[in-house]
Amino acid sequence: MSDATDPQNALTLLGRRVVQSIIEGSFPTLEIPDRSTENIVFDPDQRQFVLGGSRVVRNSSNIRHVKSFAQLLWTAYFAKELLKASRTSSLRDLYYSSEAFGVKFTDQSESDRVVTDLESLIGLAREDFGVFPEEHSSVYGQVTMRYTVPGYDGREVELTVSPDGLPIGPALMTAEPVRTGAEIVLAVESGGMFGRLIETRAWERFKAILVQLGGQPPRSTRRLLRRFHEVLGLPVYIFTDGDPWGMHIAQVIITGSANAAHVRGLTVPDAKWIGVTPADINNYSLPTEQMNDADLKRLDELTQDLRYTGSIWQEHIRGFRELRRKAEQQAFSRYGMDYVVDTYLPDKLH
Amino acid sequence: MSDATDPQNALTLLGRRVVQSIIEGSFPTLEIPDRSTENIVFDPDQRQFVLGGSRVVRNSSNIRHVKSFAQLLWTAYFAKELLKASRTSSLRDLYYSSEAFGVKFTDQSESDRVVTDLESLIGLAREDFGVFPEEHSSVYGQVTMRYTVPGYDGREVELTVSPDGLPIGPALMTAEPVRTGAEIVLAVESGGMFGRLIETRAWERFKAILVQLGGQPPRSTRRLLRRFHEVLGLPVYIFTDGDPWGMHIAQVIITGSANAAHVRGLTVPDAKWIGVTPADINNYSLPTEQMNDADLKRLDELTQDLRYTGSIWQEHIRGFRELRRKAEQQAFSRYGMDYVVDTYLPDKLH
Repeated sequence: MSDATDPQNALTLLGRRVVQSIIEGSFPTLEIPDRSTENIVFDPDQRQFVLGGSRVVRNSSNIRHVKSFAQLLWTAYFAKELLKASRTSSLRDLYYSSEAFGVKFTDQSESDRVVTDLESLIGLAREDFGVFPEEHSSVYGQVTMRYTVPGYDGREVELTVSPDGLPIGPALMTAEPVRTGAEIVLAVESGGMFGRLIETRAWERFKAILVQLGGQPPRSTRRLLRRFHEVLGLPVYIFTDGDPWGMHIAQVIITGSANAAHVRGLTVPDAKWIGVTPADINNYSLPTEQMNDADLKRLDELTQDLRYTGSIWQEHIRGFRELRRKAEQQAFSRYGMDYVVDTYLPDKLH
Repeated sequence: MSDATDPQNALTLLGRRVVQSIIEGSFPTLEIPDRSTENIVFDPDQRQFVLGGSRVVRNSSNIRHVKSFAQLLWTAYFAKELLKASRTSSLRDLYYSSEAFGVKFTDQSESDRVVTDLESLIGLAREDFGVFPEEHSSVYGQVTMRYTVPGYDGREVELTVSPDGLPIGPALMTAEPVRTGAEIVLAVESGGMFGRLIETRAWERFKAILVQLGGQPPRSTRRLLRRFHEVLGLPVYIFTDGDPWGMHIAQVIITGSANAAHVRGLTVPDAKWIGVTPADINNYSLPTEQMNDADLKRLDELTQDLRYTGSIWQEHIRGFRELRRKAEQQAFSRYGMDYVVDTYLPDKLH
C-alpha cells in the first residue's frame, strides 16, 4: 500500500499536520471536500458520482468551528486506536465511546456525519479504519475466500459452507477472493429469493455466486460485488423488485450513491439490472399492486436524476409511468415454486 | 417421530378428516385453539405460557367461515408441497404463491395469521413445515453442528468457521448440535456487541457460544438457544440493553411470548438475564438517557404482566421506575473498548 492509501499512514499524516501548525504557533485548519449535492458530479471516466473541487474549512481559531474540529480529531484518534489494536467498531459503539473522552455528540447521526467528514478528509472509506454499520447482507456460492483479519489470517473459507449463506461482515468484506467455479454474480433483493436460489441449487445451474442485498445494500456488500467483478472477472447481474426502489438499488450498485461520492471502489459500472422491469411485468403477466404516492414521487425524482439519462433507463421509467403498477420478485410464485428458476432467470440471463 | 409430531403425517391426517366429512355428506368443520389473550395461561409445570381449553370453530357450512376455511386448507396444502419437495418458503413467498391458486389474502398479515392458525390447529411450528420469516440473527462459537437439510445432510460445520458469525437460517435451525468445547451460551442484543465479543476472543475466554439476538429474536433463534441448553446441557445467559425492551427480550426467551403460546420448544426457563439491570446502571455509573413516554408505558404494562410476578423481576421493574433512565449495552464503551469484556462480563458471569 502506498502512503496515501494506507489508513494508518493517512491518519498519522493528518495528526502531524495538526501538530505542525501548533508547533509553528498557528491555529490548525482542515479542508474537507464539500459533500453537498451542488458539489457532486458524474465522472464519465470513472463512470460514477464523484465530488467536485469545492472545499469546506474547519478552522480551530473560529469559535463556531471548535466543536466540530475537536469531534473530527477525536474520531481520527479513535480510528487510529482501532487500527493499532486490529479491532472493528460499529458506528453505534463509536458514538458511545466518545463519552469516555468528554467529546460530546448530540446524537448518533452527528457522530455518523463526522465519520463521513473523516472519510472525505483522508480519502478512505470508514471500513478501511474498522468502522462498520450493524446490518449485513449475505453471500453464497462456489468461491474460496482468504481471510485477512487477526486470528483468521490466511485461513480459507468456501462460501458454500453454510446453506443459509454467510454474512458480509467486517471479516468477509476484507477477505481476498482466491478462486471460483462460478461464471456470474447474481445479486438479489430479498432474503426469500436468496434462500430459494440456494435450496433449488440455482447457483449450480447458473454457475452463480449469489448475493442477497436486503434492500439498498450496505457499502460492504457493494464493495464485495466490485471485488468479485474485478478480481475474479465475473459479470454482475442484479435482480430486484419491479418498482422505482428496486430499480434504484441496481442504479446505485452500477453508478454509485450521492452519499458515498467521496469513496472509491464501490461501483460496478458494467453490472446489469435484469429485472423485474416494467416490460417483465407485462410479458410475464405478473400480479401487481398499484403504485402509491411515494412510488410516483420517487419516479418523478429519478426522471430528474443524472444517472438515468441513458436510453434504457429512460425506457424503464417510461414503462413504470405508463403502468402505474409495481411487482415484487416474489410475484413469480404465482406460477409455482420453481418458475423463477426454471423460466424467468434462464430467459433473462441468456 | 411419532405420528402426531411428524409434520407430513399431521397434515395428511388433517386432510383425511376433511375428506372423510365430505364423503359422509357433511360440511367439514375445524376446531382451532383460541389464541386470544383471554385463553393464554401460564403453565407452572412447563414454566411457559400455553393456550387454555377454549376453541374457535371454522365451519365450512357457514358462509362467513368459508373464506378463512379455504385459506387454511390451501395453506396446509402449500405446507405439504413444501415438505414433499424438501423446500422452504418465506412468509412473503407463501403470500404471493396463493395468487396462483386463486386463494385471496387481503395482505400478508392475513396470510401470516392463517399460518399461525395452521400451527395451532396441528400443534406444530411453521418452521416444522418449512415456513420462515426473512430475518435472521447470528451465532458464533466452539460448537459442531450437523446439517439435516438436503444437499448438506450429515455434513458438519464448526460455528467458528466465519469470524462474522453464521446466520440462524432454515439450515442451521434444523441442524443437530454434535459436540462443543463451550461451557455457556451468551446471547447478546446488538450486532456491535456480538462482533466485539468475537474479535476480542471473549468466546474463548468465557468458553461461550455467542448468539446475536438483534432485538426481539425470531423463533428460530429461541429454538436454537433451547437446543443448546437441552442437547449440550449449557446454561444460557442473556445480555441486553438496560431498558424495559431489553429486559423483555430476556423474559420472552425465558418464559415465552403470548404470540407463540401454542408452540412448544422455544423457551429456556433456566436462562438468566445478566443485564444491563437498573442496578448495573448505578453500580457502573453508566451514561444514560431519560426514558421516554413509550418506555414508561411499557414499564407499566410489564408491571401487570404475569411473567413478572417473581421477586427478582419486581425488583428490576422497581429499579427502572426509580431511575426513569435507561442505558444501552454500548454504554460500557465509556470506559474503553475492552471494558465490557475485561470487567463487566467477568463480574456478571462469575
